[in-house]
Amino acid sequence: MNEERIVLAHGGGGSLGHRLLGEILLPELSNPILNELADAAVVDSPGSRLAFTTDSFVVKPLFFRGGDIGRLAVSGTVNDLAVSGAKALWLSLGLVIEEGFLIENLRRIMRSVHRTAGEAGVQVVCGDTKVVGRGEADGLFVSTSGIGVVPEGVKLSPASARPGDAVIVNGPLGEHGIAIMSEREGISFETPVVSDVAPLGGLIEEILATAPEIHVMRDPTRGGVASALNEIAESSGVTITLSEPDVPVSPVVAAACDMLGLDVLSVANEGKVLVVCTESSARQVLDAMQTHPLGREAKVIGSAGEPRGVGLVLKTSVGGQRIVDMPYGEALPRIC
Amino acid sequence: MNEERIVLAHGGGGSLGHRLLGEILLPELSNPILNELADAAVVDSPGSRLAFTTDSFVVKPLFFRGGDIGRLAVSGTVNDLAVSGAKALWLSLGLVIEEGFLIENLRRIMRSVHRTAGEAGVQVVCGDTKVVGRGEADGLFVSTSGIGVVPEGVKLSPASARPGDAVIVNGPLGEHGIAIMSEREGISFETPVVSDVAPLGGLIEEILATAPEIHVMRDPTRGGVASALNEIAESSGVTITLSEPDVPVSPVVAAACDMLGLDVLSVANEGKVLVVCTESSARQVLDAMQTHPLGREAKVIGSAGEPRGVGLVLKTSVGGQRIVDMPYGEALPRIC
Repeated sequence: MNEERIVLAHGGGGSLGHRLLGEILLPELSNPILNELADAAVVDSPGSRLAFTTDSFVVKPLFFRGGDIGRLAVSGTVNDLAVSGAKALWLSLGLVIEEGFLIENLRRIMRSVHRTAGEAGVQVVCGDTKVVGRGEADGLFVSTSGIGVVPEGVKLSPASARPGDAVIVNGPLGEHGIAIMSEREGISFETPVVSDVAPLGGLIEEILATAPEIHVMRDPTRGGVASALNEIAESSGVTITLSEPDVPVSPVVAAACDMLGLDVLSVANEGKVLVVCTESSARQVLDAMQTHPLGREAKVIGSAGEPRGVGLVLKTSVGGQRIVDMPYGEALPRIC
Repeated sequence: MNEERIVLAHGGGGSLGHRLLGEILLPELSNPILNELADAAVVDSPGSRLAFTTDSFVVKPLFFRGGDIGRLAVSGTVNDLAVSGAKALWLSLGLVIEEGFLIENLRRIMRSVHRTAGEAGVQVVCGDTKVVGRGEADGLFVSTSGIGVVPEGVKLSPASARPGDAVIVNGPLGEHGIAIMSEREGISFETPVVSDVAPLGGLIEEILATAPEIHVMRDPTRGGVASALNEIAESSGVTITLSEPDVPVSPVVAAACDMLGLDVLSVANEGKVLVVCTESSARQVLDAMQTHPLGREAKVIGSAGEPRGVGLVLKTSVGGQRIVDMPYGEALPRIC
């Protein structure tokens, strides 16, 4: 039973596909809207400004310390909505499965999707499953899209950072990337690195409720903080300066980055949010973060200033300055 | 230049990924909402009942007579919204690309996405791109999700078919499946079979505007009419009877099905809609279809009756009756 595997016919529009849906996927994901199995889920929207986002997940391995592709997919989608100022409400779930994939692993992943969705207060309301032949995909790819509602008055944009603004992050960097890398390369550390993957909707709602003068929020995933802050700096026409001693990094992640020749600023995070806000509201943002389980180690890590011809500068611990470029490509493929 | 290929670093969160987006994807898809490149697209919804759907596309080959994976993805998603009674408005687009994929082919497919979206009156407002290594996917997989608005008063459900209802289709069956099959197997027919892939939003809006007594609509894709009508019959608790002489099938598709040992009723369509409506409104539905370019060959193909312990029955041309089961699995893998 536990060795049951996906076959090509599971992907057809026939009775075997219906059994996959009815016996394996739906029992793990069940909710009244999804259970209707209509061509499209029909939902009543409580607001008229909608946020809409999509992500495909190809992380390798599918299970890793701190999470799996299911938790990653839900968190990634919820976080994209949350940093747009939206309250995430509904998700879609698309699966591309390689023939031979263990059905037990599919169940585990669906359970994780369901659990993470519950944690985030969202519902998976529609989905789709395709099966491809052996060697035509690598196990499982997951696509999630999400819809959220943007409350009246909330207006965040990557172009809204202003000179003087503070840059805040809710905790230590690089944990997702290093957790994946160490699983994949079979590297073990004395203290294992656990992915930070988590849905940030609750934390971000707290922040928005407490501190109204937020200009930008961004989740530093692929390309890490280096990519996210370079983008914000470019869109807003500012230079952002980070203070290295203030950037939270755990000793084991710092050691792993040294060993692997990686800059922690360009390593992916999956449970972090960068907040750019007026200096005067920084204290409120920090307080809101630090009283939330996902923000206890929040810190002000830098500030935005007048444009100086570069996007991102790091003031190093030894007193120097280093330009942090937009990374060229991800140093770690298939990180999410 | 035309031989440029996707490399792994195109999938990172870095500058090469930004170039892929800025130089290749956005120029083909450009619209004001997408161009913002925010984590989520923010849109103003004109209604409060939303329809939400998702699909992943793994069709092989990517280009075929009558379409390509881009046209298929947009049409499939728009059609799922349309048969739910919704006016499709916004799409998301997720790409999983195999390293080495020709950038020129990516451009062609994006152009096709854009053209089909225009034809359907929808906008691609958000997207995501991932790259996996050689041999970890088969060229390109596309995931699309869509949001539509359901007008006041429209209420369609697969459980709403009633004894006495007419079953109508907008044209000949099996063309998508046979077109793909003949490309893939290198079979050629005297008259080439062209996929029927098309967005049906306009046609379906006409039908809904003309004939209010529609009970169910469904697009018979994977698993064909056999799967779609068995599902409707089961959900509604009726038996549906089709009349073989009335089922529109082109001579070449009929010959191909004979040759390949396929039942045309279980072959996939990508530009067809099944409409189940009261007998008295069948004439209006037919008229609405036949005056639309995508419905000229529309026909009443059968009717719903009291439950007889089976879902779907075919009255054959020679006067017999045959139970048409839900297909077990798709006879043709990777058809969409």
